Amino acid sequence: MRPYGFGIDIGGTAIKLGLFRTEGELLEKWQIPTRRKDCGKWVLPDALDSVRAKMAERGIGWDQVEGVGMGVPGPVTEDGTVLRCINLGWDVFNIPNAVKKLEPHIENIQVSNDVNAAALGELWLGGAKGRWSAVMVTLGTGIGGGIVVGHKMIYGSGGAGGEIGHICIEPDEPVRCKCGGRGCLEQYCSATGLLRVTRQHLHDHPGTQTVLADTPELTAKDICDAAREGDAFALSQLDLLGKRLGRALTAVAATIDPQIFVIGGGLSNAGQILLDPIEFYYRKYAFHAFRHTEFALAELGNDAGIYGCVKMILS
Amino acid sequence: MRPYGFGIDIGGTAIKLGLFRTEGELLEKWQIPTRRKDCGKWVLPDALDSVRAKMAERGIGWDQVEGVGMGVPGPVTEDGTVLRCINLGWDVFNIPNAVKKLEPHIENIQVSNDVNAAALGELWLGGAKGRWSAVMVTLGTGIGGGIVVGHKMIYGSGGAGGEIGHICIEPDEPVRCKCGGRGCLEQYCSATGLLRVTRQHLHDHPGTQTVLADTPELTAKDICDAAREGDAFALSQLDLLGKRLGRALTAVAATIDPQIFVIGGGLSNAGQILLDPIEFYYRKYAFHAFRHTEFALAELGNDAGIYGCVKMILS
Repeated sequence: MRPYGFGIDIGGTAIKLGLFRTEGELLEKWQIPTRRKDCGKWVLPDALDSVRAKMAERGIGWDQVEGVGMGVPGPVTEDGTVLRCINLGWDVFNIPNAVKKLEPHIENIQVSNDVNAAALGELWLGGAKGRWSAVMVTLGTGIGGGIVVGHKMIYGSGGAGGEIGHICIEPDEPVRCKCGGRGCLEQYCSATGLLRVTRQHLHDHPGTQTVLADTPELTAKDICDAAREGDAFALSQLDLLGKRLGRALTAVAATIDPQIFVIGGGLSNAGQILLDPIEFYYRKYAFHAFRHTEFALAELGNDAGIYGCVKMILS
Repeated sequence: MRPYGFGIDIGGTAIKLGLFRTEGELLEKWQIPTRRKDCGKWVLPDALDSVRAKMAERGIGWDQVEGVGMGVPGPVTEDGTVLRCINLGWDVFNIPNAVKKLEPHIENIQVSNDVNAAALGELWLGGAKGRWSAVMVTLGTGIGGGIVVGHKMIYGSGGAGGEIGHICIEPDEPVRCKCGGRGCLEQYCSATGLLRVTRQHLHDHPGTQTVLADTPELTAKDICDAAREGDAFALSQLDLLGKRLGRALTAVAATIDPQIFVIGGGLSNAGQILLDPIEFYYRKYAFHAFRHTEFALAELGNDAGIYGCVKMILS
């Protein structure tokens, strides 16, 4: 195997890049802005320019590069075809073919959904290290899911493997999800969802005793911080989140029975106070055959994506 | 590849066996009773005796047998370890090791859960023929699930991959499931569940206008037959089943995004009148990225298991 590899995690606002030794050591990471104009046509050229600049700076030639792994924020099929990517303005196209046109020296290019890549990263060197199968759940603006079984990602027939944020948990919900559906998991259990549900409760019950009632411009972090300080109402909101998410994860387990669930994303910075109710309700509702699935917090933070991306070209 | 293979589908009352040509042709099928006494210790010896008798009858030697595939009615891990099998009285043990002790001539022995095997059979030569990934749902006394992705079965870390009958859909259900949980999918949507829910409704609403009110010893088949005759109450019961099952399947799709759902088991003999509401509600509740998943009825009936079992040794 050649000594170097690149992991490229493409997000809606920034492209994160990592130069790795193929044994797994992250030598350097950096990021560049995502230029979304012109339907995202500059995204791949910018990423590859940045890779070439780094190689020039370090005196690395293409004959020393094992390959490039890439994560994108949307559904991707196993052959690397992206099926629209609203955040980047992309329509349907095959990423490996596009990359090879831009840089014919790249022999090995692998592409997946960003959360699937993060799941693989956490399985390799993070919260799920040493496990064989894992489900990663990222709680941020939305809810992402990434699934790895036998060290292989579950892409899904239409690239929608792991789209657990859109499990319908409350079919009678009056408010629509961004996706157009009603009652999607992420309407309640993402950072945005937690904030929405909490605000709604405060609005509907004006006398609620909580420090949050007086917090200007409430954030999901405020709710978690208040819960950690013992605020009973804030704790009840995390309990409610845990009840919904924990039960939804039992359906995921009934499908693929993973060894471990890894909870990541911005909201997971709240730590154990968030993880505890998720785990509690998971075990309450789970079938006995998968009741004891492990739970862990993600450990690689924003780097999980670049780790997982580079891992794709190593396995 | 050698010319013959055996598929052995072990059930709680009968062991189904099939002699196949390794191109896929079923030459002969037969069955023997399952002797469950003495903690099921005769089950494997009986099955192998039956295989040897068939080989003697047909003049087939072990050097002409590619292998033996076996399905068992309980959770099985990828190495063929059965994790208790209540229907057979089995505790935890490794089936391939046990089989090789009983018949050292067998070079290739593969084992899986029976519904996973049925899913593989349907994918190979039945309702999901030509597809790449499928979820099989068997609606019988309980609900079984079998999942194949990329022609490989999803065993799960503890052998519980595809245990979709125990997705908790009604956490406040007062009646316990056989598994000890509350509100499991199979409490409502198996043949037994359909009958239970319908009887309960008739009991709670004595004036309901339906031929079922006067049917002695009501069965799930009676309900499906009445629905086909246009009985509005019977139709409403199938609609309710479809609503619950269709929505539960969206969670399965959000996890692995299969190409097709195949509906089998005794209740599926009702055909389209059962399939239509399941499909309708699936599409109603599904996220757009997997809203158009195919649905089909199983085609191999009771033979799906032996087909899938033999397929395991061919791929």
